[in-house]
Amino acid sequence: MEKEHLFIKACKKEVVERPPIWMMRQAGRYLPQYREVRAKHSFLEVCKTPELACKVTMQPIDEFGFDAAILFCDILIPLEKMGLELSFPKGGPKIANPVRTQGDVAKLTLPDPNETMPYVMEAIRVIRKALDNKIPLIGFAGAPFTMMTYAVEGGGSKSFPETKRLLFGEPKAAHDLLDKLSDNCASYLLAQIEAGAEAVQLFDSWAGILGPQEFREYALRHADMVIEKIRASKIWQNNQVPIIYFVNGSAPYLEDYKKSKADVLGIDWRMELDVAREALGWDRAVQGNMDPTMLFASQKNIEAKVKDICSRASKSPGHIFNLGHGVLPPTNPEHVRTMVDTVKALAK
Amino acid sequence: MEKEHLFIKACKKEVVERPPIWMMRQAGRYLPQYREVRAKHSFLEVCKTPELACKVTMQPIDEFGFDAAILFCDILIPLEKMGLELSFPKGGPKIANPVRTQGDVAKLTLPDPNETMPYVMEAIRVIRKALDNKIPLIGFAGAPFTMMTYAVEGGGSKSFPETKRLLFGEPKAAHDLLDKLSDNCASYLLAQIEAGAEAVQLFDSWAGILGPQEFREYALRHADMVIEKIRASKIWQNNQVPIIYFVNGSAPYLEDYKKSKADVLGIDWRMELDVAREALGWDRAVQGNMDPTMLFASQKNIEAKVKDICSRASKSPGHIFNLGHGVLPPTNPEHVRTMVDTVKALAK
Repeated sequence: MEKEHLFIKACKKEVVERPPIWMMRQAGRYLPQYREVRAKHSFLEVCKTPELACKVTMQPIDEFGFDAAILFCDILIPLEKMGLELSFPKGGPKIANPVRTQGDVAKLTLPDPNETMPYVMEAIRVIRKALDNKIPLIGFAGAPFTMMTYAVEGGGSKSFPETKRLLFGEPKAAHDLLDKLSDNCASYLLAQIEAGAEAVQLFDSWAGILGPQEFREYALRHADMVIEKIRASKIWQNNQVPIIYFVNGSAPYLEDYKKSKADVLGIDWRMELDVAREALGWDRAVQGNMDPTMLFASQKNIEAKVKDICSRASKSPGHIFNLGHGVLPPTNPEHVRTMVDTVKALAK
Repeated sequence: MEKEHLFIKACKKEVVERPPIWMMRQAGRYLPQYREVRAKHSFLEVCKTPELACKVTMQPIDEFGFDAAILFCDILIPLEKMGLELSFPKGGPKIANPVRTQGDVAKLTLPDPNETMPYVMEAIRVIRKALDNKIPLIGFAGAPFTMMTYAVEGGGSKSFPETKRLLFGEPKAAHDLLDKLSDNCASYLLAQIEAGAEAVQLFDSWAGILGPQEFREYALRHADMVIEKIRASKIWQNNQVPIIYFVNGSAPYLEDYKKSKADVLGIDWRMELDVAREALGWDRAVQGNMDPTMLFASQKNIEAKVKDICSRASKSPGHIFNLGHGVLPPTNPEHVRTMVDTVKALAK
């Protein structure tokens, strides 16, 4: 019988000696060894070559001893497989044929992720082998609403005018698009679980641009559809991996966020974690929530902040330490080490 | 004795027959007549020429009959006068010599706004004449924290790494900078009031990137310093113009936002207005809060949304209708008309 990992235990709200820690974008540009790989290989090349994806996934594990690894991949790849023409020029991702009408929605396909993204599933198998059961591997996907913003805007955006135009002007097309994205997201995550992902996270990075009604109707509802589809599948029922839902900017929607069907809710840094847990109910596991830019502070201040966050979350089990958003490229790796070591020192 | 304007009455929480309405960035690119002016004159030329500033300020008033006008000016001009080299290339404002160290902070000057920005005060006098006391004129400035982000980043930003680096890494320099920006902001707004502004708004567009402790310490505290300085001055005491404080993304900080020394608090669209007023106390006047992108919806849906917002805010006096953020360039002016007409039709 395998021992259960600290990270999995915390997701299940079991009593643990300290919070597990991992970090969003932990395999990334702040690491010199990552930049070395990227000097020789493009971003997509790393995503699509299992050995390279494994190499960069393992870098922060070997360097800092995080308690979970996360698959290295770009969230937009599944959109490409649905029929969108994706590229990564300087300045961020671009989609040449964005989805703007009901007709555009109808054209999107629902491919089998095992056929269209075999390298992702192979990367999971290779990483699992490299991890050798020492820590678990988290799979992930963009949540339907966040994927919708990229599909509709044709890339990143500041005020998301095209997305909102579709939501407010053509709600039927918006719902149809979100339904397709939800189906695609569920089958993608199930394929990851089947390949060996031991937890999955849904990233709803842009749900925080919505009003409360739209958050319920467009973001939360479709994230829940994904989670329900996953839980209804034999693949999930065989191992019941924890499901994490992360909304960046969830403070305005806590009453609804609370109702999410996920096991763990991600919290950004704009709220104190005790306030968030109080609002969500202390029986809900949470993940977060240090401001990524707090890693620019002195190591003494980082230590104090890490302890403060863990203390605020500690009234009941179910806290996974993380940043409130992805780590930023100009971060000093030694400050990441301070953060990890401070969390680890909390074990009695 | 002048009659009191609907907008001023609502700021003072007097009973009015309907909420007054104005719109952030109401003089802007969504208006064909504005684009006509801008085809002939640069942005800064319009800001710095009182007759042109007056012309574009009056356009939305003449077109839609808003209940208040707002001075046309760029929020970054006061930074230029403090010694920063400001330009407006394509892609947004740039500051060639951003503030990064205690030494940079020390170099900033505190000029007399009447001497360095006479065109702003002259624009106010010209606009007041054009308005002929039919509706009031709102003056404005960027709140200290928001001005800090531009000064430190050297322009706009996505994750504000340099600002956070200063806050977390050199808190003394950050406070000194905010103190200077607060002094500058107060004297700028007082000069506007002296020139004839009948209300002032502090825009804290970027305060929503902060954690709750930093919101209190860096954003709210310095906005309050500005408001205290204004209220302590004879200029303000002679006419006691309403002071509005607008934080974009205030939902996580309502307990602190509530303590603001402003008369009116601006609310973005991420919260329902009844929920916001409940949290802030129904004795606090509020301004907001339709999602600017809701203007992309059908006119029927805009009408319904406007009525819903006004109804949610109506339990006690003190609601000024506005968008939850600035109107977007691709907005159809006829949809703006629908919004204004719907609010006006609420009068019994």
